Amino acid sequence: MTDVKFKKLALIGIGLIGSSIARSVKAHGLADEIVCAARTADTRRIALELGIVDAAYENPVDAVKGADLVILCTPIGTYGPLAATIGPALEAGTILTDVGSVKEAVVKAVTPHLPDYVDFIPGHPVAGTEKSGPAAGFAELFIGRWFILTPTPKSSHEGLEKLTAFWTAMGSKVETMDPAHHDLVLAITSHIPHLIAYNIVGTADDLEDVTQSEVIKYSAGGFRDFTRIAASDPTMWRDVFLHNKDAVLEMLGRFSEDLTALQRAIRREDGDTLFEIFSRTRAIRRQIIDAGQETAEPDFGRIHSPDDE
Amino acid sequence: MTDVKFKKLALIGIGLIGSSIARSVKAHGLADEIVCAARTADTRRIALELGIVDAAYENPVDAVKGADLVILCTPIGTYGPLAATIGPALEAGTILTDVGSVKEAVVKAVTPHLPDYVDFIPGHPVAGTEKSGPAAGFAELFIGRWFILTPTPKSSHEGLEKLTAFWTAMGSKVETMDPAHHDLVLAITSHIPHLIAYNIVGTADDLEDVTQSEVIKYSAGGFRDFTRIAASDPTMWRDVFLHNKDAVLEMLGRFSEDLTALQRAIRREDGDTLFEIFSRTRAIRRQIIDAGQETAEPDFGRIHSPDDE
Ligand SMILES: NC(=O)c1ccc[n+]([C@@H]2O[C@H](COP(=O)([O-])OP(=O)(O)OC[C@H]3O[C@@H](n4cnc5c(N)ncnc54)[C@H](OP(=O)(O)O)[C@@H]3O)[C@@H](O)[C@H]2O)c1
Ligand SMILES: NC(=O)c1ccc[n+]([C@@H]2O[C@H](COP(=O)([O-])OP(=O)(O)OC[C@H]3O[C@@H](n4cnc5c(N)ncnc54)[C@H](OP(=O)(O)O)[C@@H]3O)[C@@H](O)[C@H]2O)c1
Repeated sequence: MTDVKFKKLALIGIGLIGSSIARSVKAHGLADEIVCAARTADTRRIALELGIVDAAYENPVDAVKGADLVILCTPIGTYGPLAATIGPALEAGTILTDVGSVKEAVVKAVTPHLPDYVDFIPGHPVAGTEKSGPAAGFAELFIGRWFILTPTPKSSHEGLEKLTAFWTAMGSKVETMDPAHHDLVLAITSHIPHLIAYNIVGTADDLEDVTQSEVIKYSAGGFRDFTRIAASDPTMWRDVFLHNKDAVLEMLGRFSEDLTALQRAIRREDGDTLFEIFSRTRAIRRQIIDAGQETAEPDFGRIHSPDDE
Repeated sequence: MTDVKFKKLALIGIGLIGSSIARSVKAHGLADEIVCAARTADTRRIALELGIVDAAYENPVDAVKGADLVILCTPIGTYGPLAATIGPALEAGTILTDVGSVKEAVVKAVTPHLPDYVDFIPGHPVAGTEKSGPAAGFAELFIGRWFILTPTPKSSHEGLEKLTAFWTAMGSKVETMDPAHHDLVLAITSHIPHLIAYNIVGTADDLEDVTQSEVIKYSAGGFRDFTRIAASDPTMWRDVFLHNKDAVLEMLGRFSEDLTALQRAIRREDGDTLFEIFSRTRAIRRQIIDAGQETAEPDFGRIHSPDDE
């Protein structure tokens, strides 16, 4: 295994993802020094109080000084301006990577601002929760989850190996993919699910004939699962949809076509078609559980007990 | 509190819901005798082996003999024929109730088959998981969950009180509602969430440019939450959509309208509209958690640990 110890890790942004990286890097001894940059004083204070970084700066230029690994952990829309700011301050051979949920737009936004001697290797951990901020992170977030590397033609072979070893050490399984293909895969496995979750929760919020308190009371019938996803950070998700527009619109078109077919089957009372569609989808759940991407416990293993009330 | 002990409880159907009732009734001593009817020999054998019923019959007529409480726990489409079969065998004063996820169609299907001296009080426990069959049930399923009574004009006051006490003893919170309103509320809180979960899992299964194995690998980005719902029993859900057609089509129309607006915002790169919609939905999650209908743990409290792999 490649030796995977960095001198100085600079995290730009220290929310759910950044702070989980900090915790995991600390737990596994993957860097001698961990620093972060964050916009607001409160975030910097909390990160320091949690003891997950050695220093916290307001200016990202201060954070990246002398760093051999820099990870962008802010919303995607900030990556271009951030790259312009820190680009000149990065040292030769420094690996610059990110955790953005969209990749093609990130490559386009970041690359032009970087000196040639910076080793830019975009990436995306397919792991997360609906919570935000430095206190929401935890060291185990990446265990058993995929990390997708989407190298550019200029990413170095050694950098790729080192970054692979880094994420592997944090418990991830690492895969390499073309940025455009990444965006298509994530459009269906993540972006569309978030969009329709936001949408149904919005629809339910707007009804006149069903009150909001009824929606809340009877949410255990299925709705509450969607509210978890729809509680995700609005800034992050706005940026995802703005930056993965084409793939999202493409997948959304297919989703809507299929929904129209289901609607027609209900209108025509075509029970056989409904049964056939509802039967097919069970197999996928089984495969996700078998692939270790999900718990087999019913109801996600939510606790059902007298104390549950 | 009303004295809530039945002489003999007959469960028609002993799957997830029926077997959970059997377990809970046993745990709380709510009936002297519990019997069930089930179509297949295997189901009867499992129910007996689990020790959750005192007897299991193939013919529902045998099960309801001498019962003072009969609960229909089969898919909704079977309720009409079942009522025709057991109607003449029911005794005077017997309470007949059900657990069907749709209420207006159930009232219409069952009522014509019942002698006047039977006390028919339809109901619906808003609780469940994606699993099926007698082994999937558990006594705690109804704790802290709502049970909705939708009495008909002929349901007796004493019957209503007794059934309320029965479900309260099993840990449920009981509410009374008009059947048509029930179907509208559940269309948005349960039926549409199931429909769009089935739909997106179907869409993902059909893509040419993203492989099924990619969908499975990267499902942790949000998709896997939908597969849980889409793993629910196809027979049950076919029947729900066939029997709640009007309310489902009505709510689906609103969902699609809202989705078109979101689609337009993405196409026009209207970040402010996206941000505004994505911000509104967080509040609903908070209220569901505060109402005790959901765990506050991130990611549903799914376990994240080295053993998780
Ligand atoms: N959440 C997930 O499930 C998930 C999964 C995989 C990848 N990602 C990616 O991870 C990145 C961060 O997500 P997160 O969940 O960690 O978000 P988060 O918890 O909201 O944290 C965001 C961090 O970025 C900073 N930030 C926000 N807006 C900024 C701005 N305009 N300029 C500079 N800094 C800013 C915040 O600082 P302040 O606190 O000072 O505002 C905070 O430190 C995103 O690019 C997202 O695509 C997220
Ligand atoms: N699952 C939920 O989340 C949930 C929540 C609230 C209400 N409900 C309602 O509860 C009822 C039962 O659901 P469940 O989840 O308990 O289903 P389940 O686990 O699949 O059990 C269904 C039971 O009905 C029997 N059955 C199936 N088809 C039948 C037929 N054509 N004729 C006679 N018996 C038949 C089955 O017997 P065999 O095993 O012998 O086939 C089994 O005992 C449905 O009406 C549903 O609307 C379900």
